[in-house]
Amino acid sequence: MRPAVQRIQVLRGPLRYPVLVAPRGAALVSDFLARQPGMLVVVTDTHVARHVWPLIREACRRRGRRLPAPLVLPAGEATKRWGSVVRVQRALLARRCDRSTCVVALGGGVVLDVAGFAAATYMRGVQWVAVPTSLLAMVDAAVGGKVGIDLAGTKNIVGAFHQPRAVLAGTDFLRTLPERERRNGLAEVVKLGMVADRRLFECLEERAREWRRPQPRRDAALVTRCCTIKARLVADDEQDRRGIRARLNFGHTIGHALEADARQGLLHGEAVALGMLAACAVATAHDLASDTLRRRLQRVLVRLGLRVVLPRAPRIALLRRAWQRDKKLCMGAPRFVLTLRIGAASVDHRVSEAQIVESLRVIVAPPREPRLRPPARPRAATRQGVR
Amino acid sequence: MRPAVQRIQVLRGPLRYPVLVAPRGAALVSDFLARQPGMLVVVTDTHVARHVWPLIREACRRRGRRLPAPLVLPAGEATKRWGSVVRVQRALLARRCDRSTCVVALGGGVVLDVAGFAAATYMRGVQWVAVPTSLLAMVDAAVGGKVGIDLAGTKNIVGAFHQPRAVLAGTDFLRTLPERERRNGLAEVVKLGMVADRRLFECLEERAREWRRPQPRRDAALVTRCCTIKARLVADDEQDRRGIRARLNFGHTIGHALEADARQGLLHGEAVALGMLAACAVATAHDLASDTLRRRLQRVLVRLGLRVVLPRAPRIALLRRAWQRDKKLCMGAPRFVLTLRIGAASVDHRVSEAQIVESLRVIVAPPREPRLRPPARPRAATRQGVR
Repeated sequence: MRPAVQRIQVLRGPLRYPVLVAPRGAALVSDFLARQPGMLVVVTDTHVARHVWPLIREACRRRGRRLPAPLVLPAGEATKRWGSVVRVQRALLARRCDRSTCVVALGGGVVLDVAGFAAATYMRGVQWVAVPTSLLAMVDAAVGGKVGIDLAGTKNIVGAFHQPRAVLAGTDFLRTLPERERRNGLAEVVKLGMVADRRLFECLEERAREWRRPQPRRDAALVTRCCTIKARLVADDEQDRRGIRARLNFGHTIGHALEADARQGLLHGEAVALGMLAACAVATAHDLASDTLRRRLQRVLVRLGLRVVLPRAPRIALLRRAWQRDKKLCMGAPRFVLTLRIGAASVDHRVSEAQIVESLRVIVAPPREPRLRPPARPRAATRQGVR
Repeated sequence: MRPAVQRIQVLRGPLRYPVLVAPRGAALVSDFLARQPGMLVVVTDTHVARHVWPLIREACRRRGRRLPAPLVLPAGEATKRWGSVVRVQRALLARRCDRSTCVVALGGGVVLDVAGFAAATYMRGVQWVAVPTSLLAMVDAAVGGKVGIDLAGTKNIVGAFHQPRAVLAGTDFLRTLPERERRNGLAEVVKLGMVADRRLFECLEERAREWRRPQPRRDAALVTRCCTIKARLVADDEQDRRGIRARLNFGHTIGHALEADARQGLLHGEAVALGMLAACAVATAHDLASDTLRRRLQRVLVRLGLRVVLPRAPRIALLRRAWQRDKKLCMGAPRFVLTLRIGAASVDHRVSEAQIVESLRVIVAPPREPRLRPPARPRAATRQGVR
């Protein structure tokens, strides 16, 4: 029995590829892979290899396609580096993969980024299929063909545009996620609502508590909506040069900087949530949006269980170094995406460093209640001044 | 005073770039770079940094453009690996290069490959200018946008298609080359004649000894001719999928395998020369060409000072491993480019491993004269057999 599959078509010049979303992932993925010609090489991570891979392997076996053992990378952000790409490519070489090979990236954003980039550069480009298993990867990383790695603490600084052959999102896989990972993905859903879909944002507002728990059919509808938005923004601006795709970077300039500060210990979506709040403060300071917008955003983030204040006081020097290395930098000044009202973003705002630092105030925890002690006496100098 | 500049236009769908060839390199390069907006980062190697870089730096300074110190990689094939790409990208990051940066690759094929690939993947692609300083790089590597590195002993297995902003070939730089490097480049010129330009081949035949020595004006004409041929083949088949660009791989299946055998100690062009001779033997064995073709090719190679026999006996197992990893592999069998007559190549010939091994005979040195010693007596076993 085939599951109900939602099909979104990404149009991209001469190349097109489908994004398939269904509540039953193993059936969806095996159905697609069983019909793929050529050699398949599955790349995954330790977490997904335990929870998702066995389901896919068995479903493929039942359809008569035996998949070779996957290449398993360590789970976690630290995997997103050159060494992992080289490891995947050495494995492709050892398996004598030629240009007809298809790399199957099975996992979250890190696996998709590493395996997709390895595919983009192996033999100057072989095909790949994205099988996202985290909510963040389904709504953000999988669609659009941006693949890449970090270098010297800078996020996604090395990479390529390499569109997958298909994106296969099975929302029952989301049950294998820890709660924190789900919230991490929900932050990017909020972002999509903020920049492009007022109705999506309102839907999150109205039933925030429901969204916090996985439910495959409901999640399939959510992922379909998000992928549709992203496919629309990406289709007209694959190479991110026309300011259309750039809207997706809302919250990312400060978000990436916060994420780079290991001491804060933030996941990508958590950092983006805080980055969005700061960006709203920038818009208010520029008189481009009222502060109601930020408060409304803050409320929905809280309801979804996301943090709206930094775990620790920000280290400005470290953040500055990060945003100065941002890919969106233009002639030395960070370029911001600002949301003017819900569902409408505006790109290319040059913001001074002083303004960024000022905007961070809205995500810094208020100082603790002062301890009870007698108020300080007015200083002598003041009294002298009064004289 | 401007030097006489030959301009060849590479047409490639919506993107176009010029290949400029002139006998006075420093003037050509500085004239172009002085007018480039954005930050320039020069990548070169130890050899070129000594012999060519000072001329360019001075010429640029006279035109009012001060270039920052170049990033200098070690000269030699061993530089063509991941570590070098990462080194270039770390340097770009350290210099705070953004998307408006232009990488200037100044050197031979290795520098062009490494710096071009680093540019292709830094921030998912920044611009680069190719300034080839070796004959091989001028006639082969610079035009076409193929960039990449070796991995695990396999040539060019990792890379990208990334067209340069321009190619600037100054043929007076060729005076800085050792004689062997010049012959190395001439082998690729012979190849271009073999696959696409009968007149070029005849020109090499007729005045082979003249071509062995550098002469900037004459070399500029030669490089212009070669780049014109290559630009034509590349323009219609950038991604190497239509069998047009593939003609340029004549001699490369066996050539790459021979080059991978470090014990032979062959340069790329030297290996390709031998690979072309073997490919001619394959064509003869398939009754596709007469052996006269191979003998004519052999004669011109000898006249140009190239070797036509292997320095050492080939190690078949090692060569097999190399050609089995060839990018041109199709369903397990190497695909050959064969020349049917001078100036006309034919692609996609599937050749069995036995046929490849057989073809190597034409490039193996004949066995030495046997030493004078009494013939061995027939062995006892034989005599027993006779009984």
